[in-house]
Amino acid sequence: MQKVDTLIIGSGPGALAAAYKLATEQSVLVCEDDLWGGTCPNRGCDPKKMLYAGAEIYAQAQRFQNSGLKGNLEVDWPALMAFKETYTKNVPSQTKSGLETNQIETVQGTAQFQAANQVKINEELYEAKNIIIATGQRPRSLQIPGAKYAYTSNEFLSLAKMPKHVTVIGAGYIALELSNLARCAGAEVDVIQHNDHPLKAFPAELASDLVKNMQQTGVNFYFNEEIQAIRKVGASFEVATNTQTIQTNWILNATGRVPNVEKLNLEAAGIKSSPAGIEVNDHLETSCASVYAIGDCLAKKLPKLTPVAEFEGNYVASNILAPKPPIRYPSIPTVVFSSLKLAQVGFESLDPQNAYETKITDVTNWYNYRRVQEPGAKVMTVIDRSTGNLVAGAILSSSADDLINQFALLINHKISAEDVAKTIFAYPSISADLNYLY
Amino acid sequence: MQKVDTLIIGSGPGALAAAYKLATEQSVLVCEDDLWGGTCPNRGCDPKKMLYAGAEIYAQAQRFQNSGLKGNLEVDWPALMAFKETYTKNVPSQTKSGLETNQIETVQGTAQFQAANQVKINEELYEAKNIIIATGQRPRSLQIPGAKYAYTSNEFLSLAKMPKHVTVIGAGYIALELSNLARCAGAEVDVIQHNDHPLKAFPAELASDLVKNMQQTGVNFYFNEEIQAIRKVGASFEVATNTQTIQTNWILNATGRVPNVEKLNLEAAGIKSSPAGIEVNDHLETSCASVYAIGDCLAKKLPKLTPVAEFEGNYVASNILAPKPPIRYPSIPTVVFSSLKLAQVGFESLDPQNAYETKITDVTNWYNYRRVQEPGAKVMTVIDRSTGNLVAGAILSSSADDLINQFALLINHKISAEDVAKTIFAYPSISADLNYLY
Repeated sequence: MQKVDTLIIGSGPGALAAAYKLATEQSVLVCEDDLWGGTCPNRGCDPKKMLYAGAEIYAQAQRFQNSGLKGNLEVDWPALMAFKETYTKNVPSQTKSGLETNQIETVQGTAQFQAANQVKINEELYEAKNIIIATGQRPRSLQIPGAKYAYTSNEFLSLAKMPKHVTVIGAGYIALELSNLARCAGAEVDVIQHNDHPLKAFPAELASDLVKNMQQTGVNFYFNEEIQAIRKVGASFEVATNTQTIQTNWILNATGRVPNVEKLNLEAAGIKSSPAGIEVNDHLETSCASVYAIGDCLAKKLPKLTPVAEFEGNYVASNILAPKPPIRYPSIPTVVFSSLKLAQVGFESLDPQNAYETKITDVTNWYNYRRVQEPGAKVMTVIDRSTGNLVAGAILSSSADDLINQFALLINHKISAEDVAKTIFAYPSISADLNYLY
Repeated sequence: MQKVDTLIIGSGPGALAAAYKLATEQSVLVCEDDLWGGTCPNRGCDPKKMLYAGAEIYAQAQRFQNSGLKGNLEVDWPALMAFKETYTKNVPSQTKSGLETNQIETVQGTAQFQAANQVKINEELYEAKNIIIATGQRPRSLQIPGAKYAYTSNEFLSLAKMPKHVTVIGAGYIALELSNLARCAGAEVDVIQHNDHPLKAFPAELASDLVKNMQQTGVNFYFNEEIQAIRKVGASFEVATNTQTIQTNWILNATGRVPNVEKLNLEAAGIKSSPAGIEVNDHLETSCASVYAIGDCLAKKLPKLTPVAEFEGNYVASNILAPKPPIRYPSIPTVVFSSLKLAQVGFESLDPQNAYETKITDVTNWYNYRRVQEPGAKVMTVIDRSTGNLVAGAILSSSADDLINQFALLINHKISAEDVAKTIFAYPSISADLNYLY
């Protein structure tokens, strides 16, 4: 039986944040049963946004055809994929060696609880004073005939060649981001959604505008259609819905993600979980004392994002080193990187008891959007009537990631409109509009 | 003799900020002897950055040749110029009608002081309780034989066709921005500077790196060369320096700007000025009571920028409506929009008595820069040792305008590194690095 102060199950960004902080004062062991580094850098945000880098330039160049640029720029998908791999190929080895350089023990294998503070990995028993579960999520499987013919974001992000026709099931953020990538790379693209609420966590008007923009780039949307079966026909596939049959070359199942909890044998430690994930209290402690859970494997309403997992990893590590008050999250910005970027921040902390003033401004003809020929940019602001302060916002534009972070700073640090007016921003720049938006 | 509460000479952004604020409580007259709207929207920041929009996409696409994009994208200069003109052509009429709609009187003509509170415009006399001078600057003329063959940024920003070979005199921000535009549009470009300090207001290492980057795109730099004469030879020109003669098709004089004060007959009101501009006290009042000056026509050390002029216009208007304490400027971000963007903020407010810690980080291999194949990105931070707070910074990267505005918020609102660490930023995004930079 090996003993360690803290055992961390998983090696994604949340796990690493906790591991590095704890290792300054403790013995730490990190266990991983898949790729070191977890979803984000291997098959999540990082590779996605490297592919997006090329697709975004292509999309911007398209807007300037006939008004400042000429020529036949195309996305070279295999080259773009190779570019992405220059980054991702080193992630597992660098993650592992980074840990080891910092005297953090690593072990490859699946962790299974044996008791409250005992875990078995590869037939070896480990005893830990604290355990942090950070096992993340994986794509949810389809429950229809032919489900096995559908791929997931994992495979999409490693596609050697872009298929001629890609059919995407789901209309959440992964569905829309990857649809846009496929479309920029020249594929015919369908998006099929069982209801008519794309990106249901985002303000409906802006989500609907993003769909319209994607339609203008040529993506086909089918709402209120239930997928009933997938059939293989020669080298192609048929996707049958309740109203039609679509011929396609490649099917992406982007219907959601489920927590990685089944293999953990949580019952042995009395750790409660539901299909939504592991249950925790306001210290991110599970129903078993000294066992914590962080990141995407948690049952929670907050957005499941890399920086949130890191925030939680930091919090749990600090709390293990010296007891802390309950976790308090700052406003959490989220961005959908698609034909335009759709971003939001702060909605999760709105209090139904408060009075808010919500305003959506069409900024398409404002200088900063006009100069890049932005098709239909909008900014939504939510002001707390009692304080006059910005408390939430949403943005649809190709610079939404920039502005939403400014919103995050204004919200978190309670910077008033009056104080914003006293700030000088670079001109011309997206932030220089803040005075007029707030 | 017409009477008015406040007469504003000039109609640029600073003048407009003052006019709109005053017009809520006063009678206001705005006088303009050139294009309504002033330099920024007609022949300054706005048209420049519209041309830059196309050039920037071209430059980004170049970086992805062989690693994600293919094809022969080119800048179509005449089309880009036409795109710019869709914006600029309406600026004068919209500026004028905007004022008139808000009950602000307008008059086209040159203003000349007759007495402390009297100004003659087109042979008409106007008496005003307050006068605000906001006449801006114009390009400085060369004092060499053949000076008349050199054009200025005014003509560059309306060039119908990009000449084959453009020679730029000067290495300040206008010189480098327009050199980059010309190079992206396919011109052979020389930059000739009398010393070896390009962008002398910026940190030398970053300015030097920007020059290197421009050299890699093919711009020729000649430092420590004095221009001695320009000669016309057929349809071309020869630029003679102390060491060589350069054959070229078009010459841009970007050696600086001078305040527009000569025509104002300032002496009649006893208003002091120097070659650097109009002298003012800490309320922006000139040596003549109730006559104020704002914006680029001021003699001051602060950067001469649109948002600074607006800040001053707002301040003077407020002070006219109800006396205010002396003007206090926030940190002022400046951006050079070139092959990379070079931005800085806060250096003008550093106190030589204080102890600062200055650090330059090469971020080229950081994820956010690597993913866009950024050639040589750097971030400089200046921390006040006594408070630990960020007080100034400089950035060389294609996203410097985004990050410098975040720096401006952190500096102006004294947000500590500890508070930044408690903020969640969108991931991946440039701001998500703030935790590691600060």
